[in-house]
Amino acid sequence: MNATPDFAGLEVGYDIPALPGMDAADIQTPCLILDLDALERNIRKMGGYAKAHGMRHRSHGKMHKSVDVQKLQERLGGVVGVCCQKVSEAEVFARGGIKDILVSNEVRDAMKIDRLARLPRYGARIGVCIDDLENVAELSHAAQKHATTLECLVEIDCGHGRCGIGTAGGAVAIAQAIDAAPGLKFAGIQAYQGGMQHLENYAERKIKLDEAVAMTKAAVEALRTAGLKPEIVSGGGTGSYYFESNSGIYNELQCGSYAFMDADYGRINDQHGNRIDRGEWENALFILTSVMSHAKSGQAVCDAGLKVQSLDSGLPVIHGRDDVKYVSASDEHGVIEDTRGVLRSNEKLKLVPGHCDPTCNLHDWYVGVRDGKVEVLWPVSARGKAY
Amino acid sequence: MNATPDFAGLEVGYDIPALPGMDAADIQTPCLILDLDALERNIRKMGGYAKAHGMRHRSHGKMHKSVDVQKLQERLGGVVGVCCQKVSEAEVFARGGIKDILVSNEVRDAMKIDRLARLPRYGARIGVCIDDLENVAELSHAAQKHATTLECLVEIDCGHGRCGIGTAGGAVAIAQAIDAAPGLKFAGIQAYQGGMQHLENYAERKIKLDEAVAMTKAAVEALRTAGLKPEIVSGGGTGSYYFESNSGIYNELQCGSYAFMDADYGRINDQHGNRIDRGEWENALFILTSVMSHAKSGQAVCDAGLKVQSLDSGLPVIHGRDDVKYVSASDEHGVIEDTRGVLRSNEKLKLVPGHCDPTCNLHDWYVGVRDGKVEVLWPVSARGKAY
Repeated sequence: MNATPDFAGLEVGYDIPALPGMDAADIQTPCLILDLDALERNIRKMGGYAKAHGMRHRSHGKMHKSVDVQKLQERLGGVVGVCCQKVSEAEVFARGGIKDILVSNEVRDAMKIDRLARLPRYGARIGVCIDDLENVAELSHAAQKHATTLECLVEIDCGHGRCGIGTAGGAVAIAQAIDAAPGLKFAGIQAYQGGMQHLENYAERKIKLDEAVAMTKAAVEALRTAGLKPEIVSGGGTGSYYFESNSGIYNELQCGSYAFMDADYGRINDQHGNRIDRGEWENALFILTSVMSHAKSGQAVCDAGLKVQSLDSGLPVIHGRDDVKYVSASDEHGVIEDTRGVLRSNEKLKLVPGHCDPTCNLHDWYVGVRDGKVEVLWPVSARGKAY
Repeated sequence: MNATPDFAGLEVGYDIPALPGMDAADIQTPCLILDLDALERNIRKMGGYAKAHGMRHRSHGKMHKSVDVQKLQERLGGVVGVCCQKVSEAEVFARGGIKDILVSNEVRDAMKIDRLARLPRYGARIGVCIDDLENVAELSHAAQKHATTLECLVEIDCGHGRCGIGTAGGAVAIAQAIDAAPGLKFAGIQAYQGGMQHLENYAERKIKLDEAVAMTKAAVEALRTAGLKPEIVSGGGTGSYYFESNSGIYNELQCGSYAFMDADYGRINDQHGNRIDRGEWENALFILTSVMSHAKSGQAVCDAGLKVQSLDSGLPVIHGRDDVKYVSASDEHGVIEDTRGVLRSNEKLKLVPGHCDPTCNLHDWYVGVRDGKVEVLWPVSARGKAY
């Protein structure tokens, strides 16, 4: 009775929710599954769009946190590199062989700056954003210490109101300091308007993005007047990439969610008033869940609660079903309204998460499915890499 | 330039947020820190309470998900075992050497049942909850296959309205089936009222718990009438344990959050109308965060957003500061109102998370701190174990 079970290698359940080759019906729930056909179609579509509009596309790794998904985007979608938000994410992508990495965020802590400045030694081009003059000397010192070059983008606040310098003059002052600092290269401008991406109405998004373009244009012109050339003008998300692509100012996109989609982005409308998950992009990411209690009539309980999804942007939507509805979540349980009593124990449902980024960050694995079989098991390589 | 940096062993940043022996000032943020003195005081206090009231305390591992925290509770708090919600959590605790493990939840999937039935081979006592007659045969089959015994508790719905059988007669029918099933032992009743734990008002909580006690008492009496002895009557949380302890019906508690505390539990009141985080329990768990942008006056941005905390129970509270306030979160950023401009870049703040359970589940490590030094680094052993 006390003998330790003989586990050989990875064990379904304890370590992983599935194994490649397994029938999709045997996947241990709850877990993230990727519809590989839909994912590949999304990636090829955005790749085609960027190419047709002469835009570089630096896909956002903060969303998928996966070296494998990033490489798929580089292979099928012509993606030029990754952006991410944390030094620890950049470390994962650099170790994973990604060659062009932008930390689209500020890095201020001395040890983090030191870690960042080591990363070019992996053979990767490393970029970082700056919104404070003091940060320039800190980064320069670390780059010199490690004999590396950090490519620096001045982050401007183009309407989101979070990080970023608020004036064109301030942007020029920082860019000039970067340009003069040993170990740093002035590479351009980070101008991502995150606050408008999820506005449902296309025209409202356009108004916000027009303002962002005007602010970005003012910064670019002020830099050029000062004799500085912003090689990269980067921004754009799943709710705005067409605006940046047609702005004449931006030359690089940073879309993330388009590849997986989620319920919150799905609700926004395109220029024709259609939801973007009904034609523009396909749902490729799902939380697979099972019914695990049906002790009451009219209500089923599934095994996907707060610990497998972030509810910051609303509840998940049960994919392809209008007869049942996910109505509330606690830590490990989801309550499903089943007024007609159609669900059975162990029945599996596919949930479209409310918000893909923080949901993916809860999981260790993507289970890639095609034609009813598990095809790949990809680690969420940078999951939990927040520091 | 292309040489791979020479990493020896675990690397601060890439793998871990801190190393034992490090000054607390050098911890890489954001991460979870534990005030070890406060944690130990909480554990000893609950241990003393349970002992004085003749209650077994089975601490809830769904909260901490840590073999180390569980063992500390067993060593200092007289805790008799762990409960958890998922088979994959039970696997982690069994492998980690915990000897009494209750899955306080239903297990329905065939492969999960098979995994569960293997676990007694670790030398652990394994319990599970049942709310459906059909589940009895499934569990019995697997226990026989692995020549193990599963201790089964009938879960009754004592007011929460989620899982659990709703009638005393239904509970008896399931208990009789368990009693007759090879490989299963009828061990008692699971009667946790989770829905009332966070009601702020003590009297309102008492009303709900009085109802739960009445329902549990009815089930116990019906079982005894049917000749069945419920050895364990288990329930109780941080917002109710005194009610169960004085009920004359329950003999086992399942408290979890008391050890760490969080902002949402902190707001509930004791019988004297005082917040329970002002005397009953101490905050032992914090998200350590740093200011990483202060480009606008009146507002600082810190590095702790949605990916290091769950906001299902509200925003975090900045510990020990009433001059600054955490006002909003996005994926990787927290916006802090700093109207007086007192914060500086890299300044560290301790956030009390809104809800500890799903927040802990986002992190790989607990950084245990005492006297300004990192004393231990404990893995969040069952983090992400949802399947």
